[in-house]
Amino acid sequence: MTLLDQIKRPSDLRALSMDQLTVLAGEMRERIFSGVSKNGGHLASNLGVVELTLALHYVYDFGPYPAGPDRLLFDVGHQCYPHKMLTGRAGDFEKLRKKGHVGGFPSPDESPYDLFAVGHAGTAISTAVGMARGDGLMKRNNHVVALVGDASIVNGMSFEGLNGAGTLKRQLLIILNDNGMSISSPQGAFSQYLERVRVSTTFAEAKKLAEKVMGRLPSSVGQTVQDVWRHIAEGFKSAIWPGQIFETLGLMYLGPIDGHDLPSMINMLGEIKHVQQPILLHVKTVKGQGCEVACTEPTKFHSPAAFEVNGCRVEIKKGTGKSWTNAYADAMIQLAREDNRVVALTAAMPDGTGLSKYEKEFPNRYFDTGICESHLTGMAAGMCKAGLRPFAAIYSTFTQRAFDQIWQEVALQHLPVVICMDRAGYVGDDGAVHHGFLDQAFLRPLPEIVLMAPSDEAELNRALKLGLSLETLSAVRYPRDTVPAQNFEEVIDSSLRPAARQPWAVGRSRTLRQGEDVTLIVYGSLVENAMTAAQSLADEGISATVIDARFCKPIDGEMIKAALRPGHAVLTIEDHSLQNGFGSAVLEYAVAHQLPTRHLTRLGHPDRLIAHANRKEQLAEVGLDAAGIVRSVKDAVRDAKSCAEVGETQLV
Amino acid sequence: MTLLDQIKRPSDLRALSMDQLTVLAGEMRERIFSGVSKNGGHLASNLGVVELTLALHYVYDFGPYPAGPDRLLFDVGHQCYPHKMLTGRAGDFEKLRKKGHVGGFPSPDESPYDLFAVGHAGTAISTAVGMARGDGLMKRNNHVVALVGDASIVNGMSFEGLNGAGTLKRQLLIILNDNGMSISSPQGAFSQYLERVRVSTTFAEAKKLAEKVMGRLPSSVGQTVQDVWRHIAEGFKSAIWPGQIFETLGLMYLGPIDGHDLPSMINMLGEIKHVQQPILLHVKTVKGQGCEVACTEPTKFHSPAAFEVNGCRVEIKKGTGKSWTNAYADAMIQLAREDNRVVALTAAMPDGTGLSKYEKEFPNRYFDTGICESHLTGMAAGMCKAGLRPFAAIYSTFTQRAFDQIWQEVALQHLPVVICMDRAGYVGDDGAVHHGFLDQAFLRPLPEIVLMAPSDEAELNRALKLGLSLETLSAVRYPRDTVPAQNFEEVIDSSLRPAARQPWAVGRSRTLRQGEDVTLIVYGSLVENAMTAAQSLADEGISATVIDARFCKPIDGEMIKAALRPGHAVLTIEDHSLQNGFGSAVLEYAVAHQLPTRHLTRLGHPDRLIAHANRKEQLAEVGLDAAGIVRSVKDAVRDAKSCAEVGETQLV
Repeated sequence: MTLLDQIKRPSDLRALSMDQLTVLAGEMRERIFSGVSKNGGHLASNLGVVELTLALHYVYDFGPYPAGPDRLLFDVGHQCYPHKMLTGRAGDFEKLRKKGHVGGFPSPDESPYDLFAVGHAGTAISTAVGMARGDGLMKRNNHVVALVGDASIVNGMSFEGLNGAGTLKRQLLIILNDNGMSISSPQGAFSQYLERVRVSTTFAEAKKLAEKVMGRLPSSVGQTVQDVWRHIAEGFKSAIWPGQIFETLGLMYLGPIDGHDLPSMINMLGEIKHVQQPILLHVKTVKGQGCEVACTEPTKFHSPAAFEVNGCRVEIKKGTGKSWTNAYADAMIQLAREDNRVVALTAAMPDGTGLSKYEKEFPNRYFDTGICESHLTGMAAGMCKAGLRPFAAIYSTFTQRAFDQIWQEVALQHLPVVICMDRAGYVGDDGAVHHGFLDQAFLRPLPEIVLMAPSDEAELNRALKLGLSLETLSAVRYPRDTVPAQNFEEVIDSSLRPAARQPWAVGRSRTLRQGEDVTLIVYGSLVENAMTAAQSLADEGISATVIDARFCKPIDGEMIKAALRPGHAVLTIEDHSLQNGFGSAVLEYAVAHQLPTRHLTRLGHPDRLIAHANRKEQLAEVGLDAAGIVRSVKDAVRDAKSCAEVGETQLV
Repeated sequence: MTLLDQIKRPSDLRALSMDQLTVLAGEMRERIFSGVSKNGGHLASNLGVVELTLALHYVYDFGPYPAGPDRLLFDVGHQCYPHKMLTGRAGDFEKLRKKGHVGGFPSPDESPYDLFAVGHAGTAISTAVGMARGDGLMKRNNHVVALVGDASIVNGMSFEGLNGAGTLKRQLLIILNDNGMSISSPQGAFSQYLERVRVSTTFAEAKKLAEKVMGRLPSSVGQTVQDVWRHIAEGFKSAIWPGQIFETLGLMYLGPIDGHDLPSMINMLGEIKHVQQPILLHVKTVKGQGCEVACTEPTKFHSPAAFEVNGCRVEIKKGTGKSWTNAYADAMIQLAREDNRVVALTAAMPDGTGLSKYEKEFPNRYFDTGICESHLTGMAAGMCKAGLRPFAAIYSTFTQRAFDQIWQEVALQHLPVVICMDRAGYVGDDGAVHHGFLDQAFLRPLPEIVLMAPSDEAELNRALKLGLSLETLSAVRYPRDTVPAQNFEEVIDSSLRPAARQPWAVGRSRTLRQGEDVTLIVYGSLVENAMTAAQSLADEGISATVIDARFCKPIDGEMIKAALRPGHAVLTIEDHSLQNGFGSAVLEYAVAHQLPTRHLTRLGHPDRLIAHANRKEQLAEVGLDAAGIVRSVKDAVRDAKSCAEVGETQLV
């Protein structure tokens, strides 16, 4: 039995010798590597914090909530695997991120050792400040620790949190886990600053140096003093107060210290544990530590899919089919070639959005802001105002971070920024915190916005082309999935092809299949499941019309008028919350135009959290796979038919 | 004719002597004072930037957009009056913020000299970085200037913007207009830092001092060196690099300089105009400069209502009636007395939210984060997790800044934070940028959230009491208006009173009036207008049922089932966007339960921007005043009746 499997709770660590802890660290790395290689997941970030996590659990008592007493808050949470292993979940890593098994992010629903379910960056300092204030008001004399990466620390909310933390009059430890990597390469002036801090000597060394210089200082005044002054000033600037920005904000700064030196970290944490003032401890770690491939290519191994190790080669398993992400990258490259006003922006997700491919061709028309969706959107607005056409590639779930800027900086100004929302809908194994289920709800009320969702790669190209041609804000959504193997225009009935191939006109849908018994109005990528469902239904004698809605705003009113006729079953289908989603837009139009709604059924996300699983499982769970659509269609058709048979009418 | 009235465009300034400019500054102050005293508006902030604005327009060429060439970006924008006066709008200040006249915030729709319509804080650096990058890519060699207050600079988006600005390789000037006041008193560690900078000596003085110390340095080493070291180090820390935080972020820091010394500012701006690197210029101004009352009570005169000057006394005109804000303050005080877990939070709006009154009684259970809605919400989540019951008072429009935190930090964690949204609906003279028209759209899809809107003061108390009793997130909305003079339970038909006085049960509406011809389902404060309308309708022989919906989520399904009956006209009424609003929730319920929708009409905000005017005018403009409701009811009743008369039925 491994040491790791003997750890049932964090306090078990304290029975181990330092040598045993080192062995344990090795076992944890193997377990992380093994779990991720089988299931995909965050590799490099977790390998980097093994010793740090061991030291934290060794020194503090992060017992189960609410008893505590100490509190450990993760930022983003993609570095929580070692923590999960030490809190009773080590045995489940072979099924990492599989449905019903240990998830990739902290989750109170999974374990009382996890305080907050997180996944979006920059929040841990604020929640830690809140817990510290709360525990303080509750007269608890416990310890609160926030673990924050160097990618998260530049997020605006982290800064707000630091600014608030600096006013605390009690213990609070913020650990800056600095691997110098962010998610991809670091962005912004602050990361350059951290880089200077990393390469600089430590405070103690610099102090010695300065004392030596001053010891040699001549007693005469004049030019020499000026020289020495400059010498010291430069020294000060680069070395003496590496943490000046944090001290400015009222925090005691300590570090940088080596995050892989377990005994030193245990000592350091023990020493500062009881200091009754907020401290920022700067810990240097190596992303991917202990694993050569992850160290060599930390971006690639930040969050890889499952992979295989063949001798000295590691191959990440590739899904079959082209991803929407990759299709987006190709589309952007094409657009940028055709129109030199086009620029592309990402908030630290060059790979996740596909823009790393675009950047190779257009390095000067590509901007990575780091995890700063708010700033990115404000910057896009400014660029647009200066005459450029910015495409802001932000995951649907992260556009929530840019909502107010999309409103004030873009919509209110009538600026034609194009928001490109990857990961719209269920995202699979990243789970509830990352689903893109809200974007249509908060964007649709913005005046003038054009909301689009393409159903295949050809349509994605057309949607982006339309966005570029508009004089108003627009947003395009597409999922974390593969595009259909063939564009629908190639496989649909030949009579429908010419119309289906037309460029997009604002607010106009297209028809992919003609039938008599039911109409499916589908918004976005679920067209693929709807078409499969329609084929199954045809085999059973139910003929369906399938409309590819293309637009949620402005919605195709003529299409809705034609579909909503008395006694005819109509279903709207979308990969978004049923509340304030595409179907709601259809309802609003229908009722405003006094169309019959008795046989209108809306399919979409139900009003509850959907946990991690693969995307197909999630869609099946809520009835949005082809089989689920078939079931709903049959119900709707049966209901409509039974009403017609009994001659039921409805007084208006 | 005053000098001010001779200024038609900014370039006219350059024809004036320095003495004339000083006279002009005085005239501008008088105009600001006069305009605000008559119409209300931002007084102190605008008085503080008169010389700064003159210097900026004197040195740069902020011509009309798009020609420019130079760009001036305001943050928040409540300091734009002097700018408006110098760009052709000085003559309109007697009608400041009146419908159709000069607005209180920058607006491109009003003048091509205004680049961005703003009102929310922290955005100018980002848009300025965007314009600088855009102008750079467009090969324009112009100048970009952002004017940011010390309240805005602590907002997370400003930090993200600074971090991005530091990577620019071209001209960009960020002016930190530091009056040490924020909107009320400054919060957070950073403001304390700025305070130290303000009182510290300048760089030049400190350098001289240090040289003097070093000149006296003994040549012996040992303890003395240590002492001197400490002396110098302390000196460095407090004085030498007042701008170290900005230099850390890659910006050249200059200042602080006196923002009321016009010649010096013109010189300084002229000197740095062509520096091809981002600069932060720290300007010290006095909020309310040149006006004694505004200087003495800058918070009170930050954004006063109209006021009268009687000798040496200034009296702000008070509206008749108690404001929702004041009612909220009283309710919070009551709640805090009854339950010691209650804490109240504001993001720099102690007066605007009413919490300054609460703070007097519960200073230790009151938290002002500064303009940091994201951090505030994360902190509230942490406090809640520690066992407190936080009430987060944020204007509806600013909850957009906290949306992602309401989702991830609160809803996803099942934490019972209560979001208290003042300024929900049309806000009157602050105009489009501040209307609270989106909150129900983005909040309703969050699982478990309870959405409430009270109709009078008694109901506000009940709503907050319910929020406190819940184990899930809730949000309460109420407008910038006065509560009804009498609670409805005191004036409604006596048979309805007992039920109307019951404490709130989740998802249960109440009935305020019983009628036969039409049902009005009203969400929130527009109940008052609906009740007035119902009385008018009664006088004309139309009897209306008025439902006070109380909840948007969970919605009262039994009530909707009872209301939506064949041939019966039903109207939903709300002070929120018609898209994804309360009415949409009613629609979703109705269609999911196959209820007839043919005679359902939704009243709410149309899909366009509504400019500044008073709130009554805005409600009248969109038909949400009593008269407008009467009109819509008559149309709906007529339509229902005509369908019934012709015996029209509708096949289901």
